Amino acid sequence: MTADRVFDRQIGFLIEIDALKSVLRQSTIVNRSRRENSAEHSWHLAMFAMVFAEDRGDLDLLKVLKMLLIHDIVEIDAGDAPIHGAGTMDKASLAQQEQAAAERIFRLLPPKQADELLKLWREFEDGLSPEARFAKGLDRLQPLLLNTLTEGGTWTENGVTEEQVYERYGPAIRGASESLWLDARALVRAYFDRRKTDG
Amino acid sequence: MTADRVFDRQIGFLIEIDALKSVLRQSTIVNRSRRENSAEHSWHLAMFAMVFAEDRGDLDLLKVLKMLLIHDIVEIDAGDAPIHGAGTMDKASLAQQEQAAAERIFRLLPPKQADELLKLWREFEDGLSPEARFAKGLDRLQPLLLNTLTEGGTWTENGVTEEQVYERYGPAIRGASESLWLDARALVRAYFDRRKTDG
Repeated sequence: MTADRVFDRQIGFLIEIDALKSVLRQSTIVNRSRRENSAEHSWHLAMFAMVFAEDRGDLDLLKVLKMLLIHDIVEIDAGDAPIHGAGTMDKASLAQQEQAAAERIFRLLPPKQADELLKLWREFEDGLSPEARFAKGLDRLQPLLLNTLTEGGTWTENGVTEEQVYERYGPAIRGASESLWLDARALVRAYFDRRKTDG
Repeated sequence: MTADRVFDRQIGFLIEIDALKSVLRQSTIVNRSRRENSAEHSWHLAMFAMVFAEDRGDLDLLKVLKMLLIHDIVEIDAGDAPIHGAGTMDKASLAQQEQAAAERIFRLLPPKQADELLKLWREFEDGLSPEARFAKGLDRLQPLLLNTLTEGGTWTENGVTEEQVYERYGPAIRGASESLWLDARALVRAYFDRRKTDG
């Protein structure tokens, strides 16, 4: 592949992923003016990783950041899968759509880079390596935090109970870090306490 | 500082920087539906770095990514400084506002992390290290690319000539990589050629 062709493919990929800025998530941003998009969500998660990876010598932070930056790119084709809509979703069909999306979008890059990003995305999806577990935990912690700041956000909209929050967010966040989960659980506890008092 | 207090400060910082999602830049996103915000811009730049840092063994990519993820956070207080408004801006006053913003926002974090991010932001601003030069070059390349895709974008709005594009984008992008500038210049050339043909 000539140098020009490499550049053309890299630029083609970078233009294509601009579309992630138009994929809307269920959560709103903190000031509640609008729903969050998946590109700015990915940035926010990368900041979570920078902040919470301190004193985690067991983690390759560069790998975590790369994973978080690319983890939602498949949503350009497959859309965002809401946490609380799991009951109504065909998981196998979604996984298939996401795999096809990863192939289409990452393969816009020159072959070596495409291989690297496909492998990294697969590692995130599988959630088995320490880096993938950490990344997946943060991907639950960030919307949890947004919900506690926006009158329950998607919990209120979907009638999600405190117990269901523990069930749906706990395992992934504990997989990232036990102490992070203790802190996150305290945020959830405080939120539901406030709601009782207010309501 | 107790562990709880560390977590509270980290969360306080992560909530504060959510505001970067509401700082609007001059450029529009590729589909032209709206202006780009600085959070999603930072994500896009980090993706540019992942793609173009290949074969750059001289660069610490982790440092580049951290820089790009935090480089615009000062805009929460100081606003976005447009490339083409430079003539009307008081540079010293802006630098002062940005320094104050960095102090206020990064100091929300526990002291050690605050020190690290302030140092990294300063290194980016100074633009002297290889990582800072690379990051600053990408921060010019991304809006250049958006402009070539959106009928000239901020160039058209501000009556910027082809020659002025070379002057305002060239030095930073060449500082990142000579070959990247050759490719970027070809994109600019092709855009202005199309514009002449279209009329």
